[in-house]
Amino acid sequence: MKITKDLYQSNLVLLTDFYQLTMAYAYWKAGKGEQEAVFNLFFRKHPFQGGFTLAAGLDYVVDFCKNFKFEKADLEYLEVMKDQDGSPVFEAAFLEYLQQLEFTCDIDAVEEGTVAFPNSPLVRVRGPLIQCQLLETPLLNIINFQTLIATKAARINLAAQGEPVLEFGLRRAQGIDGALAASRAAYIGGCTSTSNVMAGKLFGIPVAGTHAHSWILSFETELEAFEAYAEAFPDQCVFLVDTYDTLNGVKNAIKVGEILRSKGKEMVGIRIDSGDLAYFSSKARQMLDGAGFPEAKIVASNDLDEHIIASLKSQDADINVWGVGTKLVTAYDQPALGAVYKLSAIKNEEGEWEPKVKVSQQSLKINIPGIHNTKRYFSKGKAVADMIFLEDQPIDTKGVVIIDPVDATRRKRLMPAFYQEEVLLKPIFDKGKKVYKLPTLTEIRDRATSQLESLDKTHKRLVNPHLYPVGLEENLHHLRMELVLKAKKFDNGED
Amino acid sequence: MKITKDLYQSNLVLLTDFYQLTMAYAYWKAGKGEQEAVFNLFFRKHPFQGGFTLAAGLDYVVDFCKNFKFEKADLEYLEVMKDQDGSPVFEAAFLEYLQQLEFTCDIDAVEEGTVAFPNSPLVRVRGPLIQCQLLETPLLNIINFQTLIATKAARINLAAQGEPVLEFGLRRAQGIDGALAASRAAYIGGCTSTSNVMAGKLFGIPVAGTHAHSWILSFETELEAFEAYAEAFPDQCVFLVDTYDTLNGVKNAIKVGEILRSKGKEMVGIRIDSGDLAYFSSKARQMLDGAGFPEAKIVASNDLDEHIIASLKSQDADINVWGVGTKLVTAYDQPALGAVYKLSAIKNEEGEWEPKVKVSQQSLKINIPGIHNTKRYFSKGKAVADMIFLEDQPIDTKGVVIIDPVDATRRKRLMPAFYQEEVLLKPIFDKGKKVYKLPTLTEIRDRATSQLESLDKTHKRLVNPHLYPVGLEENLHHLRMELVLKAKKFDNGED
Repeated sequence: MKITKDLYQSNLVLLTDFYQLTMAYAYWKAGKGEQEAVFNLFFRKHPFQGGFTLAAGLDYVVDFCKNFKFEKADLEYLEVMKDQDGSPVFEAAFLEYLQQLEFTCDIDAVEEGTVAFPNSPLVRVRGPLIQCQLLETPLLNIINFQTLIATKAARINLAAQGEPVLEFGLRRAQGIDGALAASRAAYIGGCTSTSNVMAGKLFGIPVAGTHAHSWILSFETELEAFEAYAEAFPDQCVFLVDTYDTLNGVKNAIKVGEILRSKGKEMVGIRIDSGDLAYFSSKARQMLDGAGFPEAKIVASNDLDEHIIASLKSQDADINVWGVGTKLVTAYDQPALGAVYKLSAIKNEEGEWEPKVKVSQQSLKINIPGIHNTKRYFSKGKAVADMIFLEDQPIDTKGVVIIDPVDATRRKRLMPAFYQEEVLLKPIFDKGKKVYKLPTLTEIRDRATSQLESLDKTHKRLVNPHLYPVGLEENLHHLRMELVLKAKKFDNGED
Repeated sequence: MKITKDLYQSNLVLLTDFYQLTMAYAYWKAGKGEQEAVFNLFFRKHPFQGGFTLAAGLDYVVDFCKNFKFEKADLEYLEVMKDQDGSPVFEAAFLEYLQQLEFTCDIDAVEEGTVAFPNSPLVRVRGPLIQCQLLETPLLNIINFQTLIATKAARINLAAQGEPVLEFGLRRAQGIDGALAASRAAYIGGCTSTSNVMAGKLFGIPVAGTHAHSWILSFETELEAFEAYAEAFPDQCVFLVDTYDTLNGVKNAIKVGEILRSKGKEMVGIRIDSGDLAYFSSKARQMLDGAGFPEAKIVASNDLDEHIIASLKSQDADINVWGVGTKLVTAYDQPALGAVYKLSAIKNEEGEWEPKVKVSQQSLKINIPGIHNTKRYFSKGKAVADMIFLEDQPIDTKGVVIIDPVDATRRKRLMPAFYQEEVLLKPIFDKGKKVYKLPTLTEIRDRATSQLESLDKTHKRLVNPHLYPVGLEENLHHLRMELVLKAKKFDNGED
């Protein structure tokens, strides 16, 4: 396919913002291109006003980094770029530098399927400034989207309380990969299958689906259409009953169910795709039970999300399987996560690491300086708190105080010795060499399940969740305060 | 790149819902696979509560159809699929049928960059049932997203009143193609450039960008950072002034602007990415003017959309260039268009076309039957009304009545002879052969501009727009009523 070949056959090194390249050039001109820096990718707020976020996308990031290389066609494109007065934007020597460039960064990251919280890095990149900058945009693109969708899927699956959730968002997804990556992330978040055949083929996700309204319309009558479908799939009949009239559709489904039974087969169930799902599912359940089909499943779809599912559940709707599309794959109520990628340390000419903060009018937007990592403490399998700490500072296992990064009055004292702990950032690349064994998609999905189980149910509430404690270890808190005050004084001449 | 190669190197024939394949199989089993049908792709409501929609994505559709072919790997994937009892889902003879399958449909479509309205087809597919079904999902995926983003971009550009709008949504877009296709559609909708270098390379869109906060942080002081940037790009300096303190940043930009001027260069301007944009842009304007830089541009960014731009305009903010990201590329306030693809006619065994409607509880959801097309009438270059008509029925040029498809009390009498007219669906494929010359992206963008000009400004209002008249030609209206009443009676035993 021409478009997709053009789009994707080459590596994706140019899938970046132009300013990463202009900065790369300017760093190179200033002799700073190889200066070592540390950047953190993190988000500031859970999506969907929720109490947790489920990390996803690392597999793509690994793939991107492994193939990070400027190829001939990429450089040719940059070579012919001209500025307003017609002179080349980039010097030839810089393009040669790019041609030679090899990926040599350290990357540490939270594993896919891990529950994550604001301000704590999902990915940490350490390496030459130019490489760090060029990675910013693609890493954000990948992690922002897959994390968003995995989180949405987890919320929807929580609402469904263990009943199967089928993802069928392809037709409304944001582009080709907006569908494929969403199917992958939705599976991580707990969905049982996808309608997207290509996602099934590429990622090994189970695929599901039966028939559409057009199937019914292509026959003279609904009954005829159900019969013909039953001929083709005697073991897998889920009849879509709402093309003409939902309850009449249920009657027709029962008739064909009886024909199937006379041949020793059982219909799987029916699907309702419109109208009042609480009302029609209850009516349909009564009709199916009354006709001797208590095992027949009722599948519901039509703009479902976690809130509508929770509402249907609270109304005792007789629904056994949930089909979710648009609202899941586009994360309809919040279609972007808003993770950022910020410089937190740079190595000066003396070879010492200098921690960095970007000051801002909003204290919410001040990043966390230095080379830091996060420890999660567990008690009896339940996560109790996350501590963001400077990697080069010892932790007093007898007692630490963690301080909320936004509201310094929120503090918590912890006795690390009493808890199990897990360090969240795991080494993925060491100086450009992959040191991490990628888990399978099933393993990632299982990790997501057990991670969500480790979280108290109050943090998983869909609305107004209880805030999980995440704080800066005291030394890190003080370092940050000091840098912020220094920066404000430096530039404002006040405070 | 492994993931993208796996994802995109093959054709995309499996980028479809699984139920399209199960229906294809069942059609084949029922001997209906080659039965001819007509499907229409259309939307029911303008996105963003707006008064128009801008069609986009046809180029991708053409590419998809040209490469429609089941390849070995696709068939191997389908071959090993098993149902619950372990037997193959698809018979071998059906897979052979798929292997032989060649694209033979007629496709008629609205050209990219055309203003479109609810219920009127954007794409019409006529061909064998199986092919029509397999095309449903990919066509919806492509058209839904690109049309949505082109429309959003057009709205944002209307708000900017001709001032340049830069698109830089890559980092927040929904996946790789969610970014690339969005950059393309945003350009069609009037944006002047993208930050996405790969979109620039693939589609020939101008790319733009300067530097980030990290550039400033990597130096000891902001002034030093600006100076170094000016060294690298003396002709293209747009200084990001809000890393530490916005107005102090403007002072530093002016200092470096003076250094540049002493070397015979001019700074291009400054960028503000946070805080109160109305306040800071006015203050910055005063400072720049006062320092002798009245030509320096002020670029603003930070979660902008059409409403915020319109609000800033109404406050006389001194902004000359608008940078728009997340809200544009994800269509944040409505991240899916919701176009559908419905059977409207099928050829019976006698070789006659039978028009079809899907009845529904909501009259909004009843489709338009038959093989229809749309005529747009123009007076003095302005569009006055669209008429959806049956292609095989003559139009009385002396006078027609068009009837709103949702509210039959809304009617309009037209004298076609008094108007210029354009038939909106153009032939794209004739029995699988491409008969349409694809315009360049620039031509598409120009078409969008002139199409928007042909629309009265009341329809382009961002909030509460005036409804543009689109109606069914009388014969089509009566056919539809008749079929709906017949269908309701048929299945309900009532009217």
